[in-house]
Amino acid sequence: MGSFNDGIDELIITSGAQQVMDLAAKSLCNERDTVICESPSFIGSLNTFRSYNINLCGVSMDNDGINIDLLEKALNTKKNVRFIYVIPNFQNPSGITLSLKKRKAIYELAVKYNVLILEDNPYGDLRFYGENIPNIKSFDKTGHVIYAGTFSKIISPGLRVGFAIAPKDIITKMVVCKQGQDVHTNVLAQLIIDNFLEKCDIKLHLSNLQKLYKEKAIYMEQFMERYFNGNITYNKIEGGLFVWCKIQIGIDIIDFCKAALEKKVCIIPGNTFMVDESEHTNAFRVTYSTPSKEQIEKGVKILGEIAKI
Amino acid sequence: MGSFNDGIDELIITSGAQQVMDLAAKSLCNERDTVICESPSFIGSLNTFRSYNINLCGVSMDNDGINIDLLEKALNTKKNVRFIYVIPNFQNPSGITLSLKKRKAIYELAVKYNVLILEDNPYGDLRFYGENIPNIKSFDKTGHVIYAGTFSKIISPGLRVGFAIAPKDIITKMVVCKQGQDVHTNVLAQLIIDNFLEKCDIKLHLSNLQKLYKEKAIYMEQFMERYFNGNITYNKIEGGLFVWCKIQIGIDIIDFCKAALEKKVCIIPGNTFMVDESEHTNAFRVTYSTPSKEQIEKGVKILGEIAKI
Repeated sequence: MGSFNDGIDELIITSGAQQVMDLAAKSLCNERDTVICESPSFIGSLNTFRSYNINLCGVSMDNDGINIDLLEKALNTKKNVRFIYVIPNFQNPSGITLSLKKRKAIYELAVKYNVLILEDNPYGDLRFYGENIPNIKSFDKTGHVIYAGTFSKIISPGLRVGFAIAPKDIITKMVVCKQGQDVHTNVLAQLIIDNFLEKCDIKLHLSNLQKLYKEKAIYMEQFMERYFNGNITYNKIEGGLFVWCKIQIGIDIIDFCKAALEKKVCIIPGNTFMVDESEHTNAFRVTYSTPSKEQIEKGVKILGEIAKI
Repeated sequence: MGSFNDGIDELIITSGAQQVMDLAAKSLCNERDTVICESPSFIGSLNTFRSYNINLCGVSMDNDGINIDLLEKALNTKKNVRFIYVIPNFQNPSGITLSLKKRKAIYELAVKYNVLILEDNPYGDLRFYGENIPNIKSFDKTGHVIYAGTFSKIISPGLRVGFAIAPKDIITKMVVCKQGQDVHTNVLAQLIIDNFLEKCDIKLHLSNLQKLYKEKAIYMEQFMERYFNGNITYNKIEGGLFVWCKIQIGIDIIDFCKAALEKKVCIIPGNTFMVDESEHTNAFRVTYSTPSKEQIEKGVKILGEIAKI
């Protein structure tokens, strides 16, 4: 792997943060190299890694993030590990946030085993309870962290503007790969984002967004409390856009999601997000980002009814 | 390879036509498969194909396009040829346009050897002399042609909106690859292009563009006639944005381009566009798209002076 510690970080503007995952995989991995991921993890990133014939190694998560003992075991046993992929805040799909202690532990393991960390942080600004936790990138004195950010969740997903911050050597490789993919990111979209950041009060804007999603999250939890009757459990919501739920009785999760879809409630079965898609899970993901209060109540009520059957 | 002839073509909107080259390579080729290209050809596409560890096979060109005998020889001798990459109109960098006879011959060879054609047509609308020649795609009754188009050269390159038209099976693969790269193309840019096409007189717009570039091309040829004195020869300009020039005396092409750059004239040495970059060439590419009449005269005069030394 070599060291990327030349002390200088640079930035690349990408066509959404999705492109960071692609450029990282393309510039850092050969076929059959290994990428370690949280399991479950964001299917969009997993599929991008898979598209380069990368071997994915999923490490299961505790309530405060990836299991550190299992992570070290993976680093010890897997060959040609290129990077550890983590979503530190309100992870998609689990909603789990990595504790400060674990962020430091992951960074120390990355240095010890000389592998990179790809820190994908689309939801960090959408916290409505508790204190912000420093990014792993903020500890990085050795050039082991690629940080991926995006304006998709706080300004507009349709504009497709994201970015990566990483050591110069890595950004240089990413730039070459990006030139072959789309030459550069839409200039008008970059100007709109630039103008927004310069002329608008971004703190006020984020506070408004947090207020909006917090209100929806509160409704979601209230209705889940009311209609789930313990037949479905769910993680407490502290921020982000997703809730990870588990069915407590013996209904097959795919059948459950199909039954929901027949009643026009769209939820995503948990196996979709597993590194090994055939792995058994009784979990599913819901989001409160778009639906209204009334739609949230109606949807949650329907899920509760299906779980009773 | 199998047949792609299900009789249905579909469309994908891409982030510039560059992304079509990437998606075609990614969805159709394994490492060490072969892509046959015109030589010289557009460096952006060649580098994208190289990034997937594809073996490039360059076939030299006559004044009416790729040499058909050499193309058939390549199809006979190269293993795992996935597609033939051609720029049919005012090719970058040579400015050469494929004759109708050769377009038909390439299509017949593609059917005979059951390989695809990737027809990349960014400059076709910028013709200012002669008659338009039908695209290879227009003969395609068997699903052997992927057509790549773009609005970069006729509306705005900064918006990054291009497209591919190809058999459904291929577009389906491209869509999956694109989801992993940038999810979708900037929505605002798509709306701007859509609005432009709907509300503006595109024929009038193209006619204005053709007039503008024709005027510049005439200046370019006049000044080349005046200042080159036979020390540099050039292809007649019929459209597009580029002129392919050849030095007639024994100056090394890299030294020539460096000497021009020192006098602030930026031209591209021909070897950059060769499939085998170490291949000897005495050619360079110039463009008249951006410079003013005065700048064209100044630049051409400087080139003429360097070629005399």
